[in-house]
Amino acid sequence: METLMLITNFNNRRCDLELKSCLLTAVTCAHWFCLVFCESSLSARSAEGTMRGTSTNMRLKLPITCFILEIILIILFCALVEYDKETDAKQWHNSSDHNYQNEFYYRYPSFQDVHVMIFIGFGFLMTFLQRYGFSSVGFNFLIAAFALQWATLMQGFFHGMHGGRIHVGVESMINADFCTGAVLISFGAVLGKTSPVQLLIMAMFEVTLFAVNEFVVLSVVGAKDAGGSMTIHTFGAYFGLMVTRILYRPNLDKSKHKNSSVYHSDLFAMIGTLYLWMFWPSFNSAITAHGDDQHRTALNTYYSLAACTLATYGLSSLTAHDGKLDMVHIQNAALAGGVAAGTAGEMMLTPFGSMIVGFLAGVISVLGYKYLSPILEDKLKIQDTCGVHNLHGMPGVLGAIVGAVTAALASVDTYGSGMEDVFPDVASGEIQAFSQGVRQIIALAVTLGIALVGGLIVGFILKLPIFGAPPDTICYEDSIYWEVPEEEEGHGNQLTAVRVSEETKKLNA
Amino acid sequence: METLMLITNFNNRRCDLELKSCLLTAVTCAHWFCLVFCESSLSARSAEGTMRGTSTNMRLKLPITCFILEIILIILFCALVEYDKETDAKQWHNSSDHNYQNEFYYRYPSFQDVHVMIFIGFGFLMTFLQRYGFSSVGFNFLIAAFALQWATLMQGFFHGMHGGRIHVGVESMINADFCTGAVLISFGAVLGKTSPVQLLIMAMFEVTLFAVNEFVVLSVVGAKDAGGSMTIHTFGAYFGLMVTRILYRPNLDKSKHKNSSVYHSDLFAMIGTLYLWMFWPSFNSAITAHGDDQHRTALNTYYSLAACTLATYGLSSLTAHDGKLDMVHIQNAALAGGVAAGTAGEMMLTPFGSMIVGFLAGVISVLGYKYLSPILEDKLKIQDTCGVHNLHGMPGVLGAIVGAVTAALASVDTYGSGMEDVFPDVASGEIQAFSQGVRQIIALAVTLGIALVGGLIVGFILKLPIFGAPPDTICYEDSIYWEVPEEEEGHGNQLTAVRVSEETKKLNA
Amino acid sequence: METLMLITNFNNRRCDLELKSCLLTAVTCAHWFCLVFCESSLSARSAEGTMRGTSTNMRLKLPITCFILEIILIILFCALVEYDKETDAKQWHNSSDHNYQNEFYYRYPSFQDVHVMIFIGFGFLMTFLQRYGFSSVGFNFLIAAFALQWATLMQGFFHGMHGGRIHVGVESMINADFCTGAVLISFGAVLGKTSPVQLLIMAMFEVTLFAVNEFVVLSVVGAKDAGGSMTIHTFGAYFGLMVTRILYRPNLDKSKHKNSSVYHSDLFAMIGTLYLWMFWPSFNSAITAHGDDQHRTALNTYYSLAACTLATYGLSSLTAHDGKLDMVHIQNAALAGGVAAGTAGEMMLTPFGSMIVGFLAGVISVLGYKYLSPILEDKLKIQDTCGVHNLHGMPGVLGAIVGAVTAALASVDTYGSGMEDVFPDVASGEIQAFSQGVRQIIALAVTLGIALVGGLIVGFILKLPIFGAPPDTICYEDSIYWEVPEEEEGHGNQLTAVRVSEETKKLNA
Repeated sequence: METLMLITNFNNRRCDLELKSCLLTAVTCAHWFCLVFCESSLSARSAEGTMRGTSTNMRLKLPITCFILEIILIILFCALVEYDKETDAKQWHNSSDHNYQNEFYYRYPSFQDVHVMIFIGFGFLMTFLQRYGFSSVGFNFLIAAFALQWATLMQGFFHGMHGGRIHVGVESMINADFCTGAVLISFGAVLGKTSPVQLLIMAMFEVTLFAVNEFVVLSVVGAKDAGGSMTIHTFGAYFGLMVTRILYRPNLDKSKHKNSSVYHSDLFAMIGTLYLWMFWPSFNSAITAHGDDQHRTALNTYYSLAACTLATYGLSSLTAHDGKLDMVHIQNAALAGGVAAGTAGEMMLTPFGSMIVGFLAGVISVLGYKYLSPILEDKLKIQDTCGVHNLHGMPGVLGAIVGAVTAALASVDTYGSGMEDVFPDVASGEIQAFSQGVRQIIALAVTLGIALVGGLIVGFILKLPIFGAPPDTICYEDSIYWEVPEEEEGHGNQLTAVRVSEETKKLNA
Repeated sequence: METLMLITNFNNRRCDLELKSCLLTAVTCAHWFCLVFCESSLSARSAEGTMRGTSTNMRLKLPITCFILEIILIILFCALVEYDKETDAKQWHNSSDHNYQNEFYYRYPSFQDVHVMIFIGFGFLMTFLQRYGFSSVGFNFLIAAFALQWATLMQGFFHGMHGGRIHVGVESMINADFCTGAVLISFGAVLGKTSPVQLLIMAMFEVTLFAVNEFVVLSVVGAKDAGGSMTIHTFGAYFGLMVTRILYRPNLDKSKHKNSSVYHSDLFAMIGTLYLWMFWPSFNSAITAHGDDQHRTALNTYYSLAACTLATYGLSSLTAHDGKLDMVHIQNAALAGGVAAGTAGEMMLTPFGSMIVGFLAGVISVLGYKYLSPILEDKLKIQDTCGVHNLHGMPGVLGAIVGAVTAALASVDTYGSGMEDVFPDVASGEIQAFSQGVRQIIALAVTLGIALVGGLIVGFILKLPIFGAPPDTICYEDSIYWEVPEEEEGHGNQLTAVRVSEETKKLNA
Repeated sequence: METLMLITNFNNRRCDLELKSCLLTAVTCAHWFCLVFCESSLSARSAEGTMRGTSTNMRLKLPITCFILEIILIILFCALVEYDKETDAKQWHNSSDHNYQNEFYYRYPSFQDVHVMIFIGFGFLMTFLQRYGFSSVGFNFLIAAFALQWATLMQGFFHGMHGGRIHVGVESMINADFCTGAVLISFGAVLGKTSPVQLLIMAMFEVTLFAVNEFVVLSVVGAKDAGGSMTIHTFGAYFGLMVTRILYRPNLDKSKHKNSSVYHSDLFAMIGTLYLWMFWPSFNSAITAHGDDQHRTALNTYYSLAACTLATYGLSSLTAHDGKLDMVHIQNAALAGGVAAGTAGEMMLTPFGSMIVGFLAGVISVLGYKYLSPILEDKLKIQDTCGVHNLHGMPGVLGAIVGAVTAALASVDTYGSGMEDVFPDVASGEIQAFSQGVRQIIALAVTLGIALVGGLIVGFILKLPIFGAPPDTICYEDSIYWEVPEEEEGHGNQLTAVRVSEETKKLNA
């Protein structure tokens, strides 16, 4: 909550009295929330006495968290948010723009594609676990619905203020979904090992840090990152990896038999994979400049993904047992081409350049899943459930480097007067193209720094034993937080199912 | 069929001779259809002798219904329907509009989102039942494909006639899909308890009544309802509730064990939920005025849904057993925010206003599922399979009231010259804003009246024992109307499966 | 590879020296590829000795194929492909077009719908087999990702060259996806009986022949075929049927028990069906002329599909056992209306004309599944797994004939100055409308000829025992090419599973 106050102070001068009183109410709510929350946790703890000092019963924790967060959001939206010119009846009709020029028609289809990626793409990609489908889709839904509201505020604070008010429209919707994407990447790292309350708390902090990092990278450093190789993928991955490192569970192998897929769960996951793959061109091009820029970004991403897919299939077959394809690679590594084209996608990367980038991304991603992930888990104690390091981390860094190189090589000869859209500071003569490349590298370093330090701090916050995290023995299991249909619970390994439900009963006391 | 004739008479003066003869053919077809249909039913009945006086064998009933309905549709389309200016080669090229100004580019992406909601959204939302997935998706597909054609005619009769001809284009496609949505809501109330023939007959009457109600609400009363809180959701829900009340089955508990979900069926249902959730902003904004109106409607709906989701998760955990989340709530109540923003979405509801509306909708929806549905079933004998009262009924009424209040508070100060788009009669000075609010309330009353009376009548029609409704013992079961893969039939409860297939065999004699 | 060289020669004059050296490298790569490939196959064969002279182990074959193909693609893209005016920063900014006029905004939403059809639609439509879901979705993904890159080159060679360079943008993306569609149709015919290497080889040749046929039909003959009834559906279907005829497996009944669906696999397939159904209006209208043409095509397809669905349900119930609906018909025949509206969709077919076409398409498609497919298999030895003859073959021919008739009946009275968009040669007075009809029929004949002869040749190439095709006993089975989760392998028929895995082990030696 301190972060919230800090940011509020940051904009204090512009806030009028009414706003101040609203915020006061919000902060009071937040304090009350913390008090009630801790008390409920303490009483729950004393009630059960044993069980690792924690209860996974969400009866009070989750409702309190949801309601207080939503009430704070409503109060802050009331105080701070208003329609932008394109959505306000009066302002739009006062302007001389024709209805057909409304931003809605040039951004909304892209927004809907991004929206599908966030809710169906990320949600179903994580349903590969045999008994964690409800949580994968359901918690993804919950934290995304929260994060996009909170992101509207946080991103507004940092780069959307107009006379003390945050303006919203389709661009803010896309940006909020982007920020949500970073949170969902981090969710992938801790998948199966966290309670919904932990995830909401993580989302709250991560969105804030995301907005700070985005502000530094784009506005202070002056880097370009339309598709978010750095701000979304690198940030989300390394933040999540640090959180999962801090939340390291030495006895996680007790849940090992559930940390795998079954036949149908892998098919559900392919729904997520394919939606991410198909709509990634829309993702990378959603907020680039109108005209050739959006068009070119979509095209580059399309080629990068296609090349990445062939690399993934080839390498999966080469490295896997008996030459058989591994679903984990197909579901994940085939997407690395979209991540890696995030920064350079809007630049004059050329189609074959995009294909090379995609090919490399697919190669490092499969190699990561095959050889690096086991090392990270054994040596560095990073339990990365979805392998976000291979899908978002390394390809994100690759994308940042490709972006830096492409920027450094930019010339008026290639870009013409289109240089203004892509590199405005180079076009205005303020800096050289090479300096733009340096900026991109600085942006990568800043992103890594903020992600790792932020993940460290947030990891320790999430370690507080009041958020109802599951014990090591019942990770990757829906029945701890969801009412699961009974007849299916006994399906498969009968013994396990019985043990689980007994243990769960105790925990939910 | 009388309704059809009535409407035809209504437009009689404008119809030329050719048209009259066509309609005559259509009505003759319809008569022939009724005769053949009844005969086939009677012969089927006598053939089997016993079995509750009804046969679920669709061999003659369904083909006859489908073919006759489609032939009538083709004849009426031939007589009445033509391309509008935007789709007709000659007219479009005669106009001075540039190709880029064609309505196609400003409505079609929204149409496609609505289309996905109708076929994937509604279809998969209802697959939650363990053995009713084929019927949920399949009957949804069938009645939607019929309803959208029939709706084109019915809506055309009432508000799309140009010189005796119905003009079609992307707007008529969206409106037809909207009308189809209302039918599918009613389908949700009777899910698992009706034959496909009953559903087609219900769709035929409901579409007609929908068009009448829409005409009265929008053109006679002069209310606004772009997203259909009243015309679609309230109408569809209360119509369906009344139909299911009339079709009350006192011995439905014999099929009770099948009226529940299994693990994977709940995941399939989440596909439906998420598509409805993601594309609801497109639904509410699909036919609002161009420019700021469409943009604002999408934005308001987006915030309403996000707030609704947090309310749903919080309240589901608070009310459910052991603090665990209930999939029924997540699948349904999280959507109530879209329903409730249907009327006021295009107005200057403000972002935080939308969030409050969504929050309230989520709360009443979860409470409805938890506490009201059992009461409705026990006391009022309303067996509402999908709980459409909680998802569409109450949130629809809430949306109507919110719309009335927002309309009553409208001022030129807020809307500027945008008032013309949203409240043309207020803008022209014909009425005061307060009167617009009164209109909205009258529209709600009219909608409830037509829905309930219409549902009553149609319910009794559907009760006729000639449509092949399933017996109480084999409700919620695909195998009665579908060839179901054999090896899976024995899966799970062997005894049940065997009993079912024997009973089914008798019925299908 | 000869084909490739041939085409290269075709454009030789325009290629500069740099290009020549690039192509030389590519061809060298290809040669090296063939050598290594054959050697690896031979060594694999000798290693195992027995087992029908073939090994299904993909360890070397698939990686080599993927990597070499992608490297060739990158080299050719480097030599030949560049951004078109709409995607190039310099050229776009040099033109006087406003950003909002960029083609991106008028084609990209359609492109995304087509993209969903290719990857989700085709992919999931084929998941109906009980143990072939990974391969259906996964191989669909692989060959589509390859085919769209290769199609960009092949289509560019034949009708996208500008000064020796292929120009790419959203139109080339749509065209590449279209060509990919034809390959996936052929994939449907051989589904379950081919290795991924065979499929890639088939895709390579089929894309080339597709581009040749498309060039002949559209540019030489001068026919119109915007939605591809001929170029995509008829071509893809008859090509695939001929390939599967050549690859005839007399002992395929040994895998018969796996050539069927289970409950959940049919639901997954419905995802594919519905996405194809919903987005078909976008498919047919994606590359028609702007304005009324795109609008009208979408509208016609929409009505055709709706009518087709009613015909399908009616006839499925009429022909199937006990009047029950057959999922195979619903999943496939309901789509025939989109196929049949592919050629005439952009013409003034009228709404009721579209409905008649759709109705007929549904009827012939269901009758084909019910009565023709068994005959084709028994008498003509055509083992057509997905029944592409019924979904794409016959409806495609119907669509071609409807297109010819509609074209022959075109008059200035109906089209006005819109004639220029639809039939430019008729509008310019070069030919009569009747001659356009004749052209359409010639185009159909050409398409059938090239498809059948091409399929014959490619079938024999695929029969070479070096591509790792599965033996007759383990067709329709994922575990031969995929790591399948273990606990599910024993699910269902224990005996079968054990036999399979032992046999698989031997093969993968």
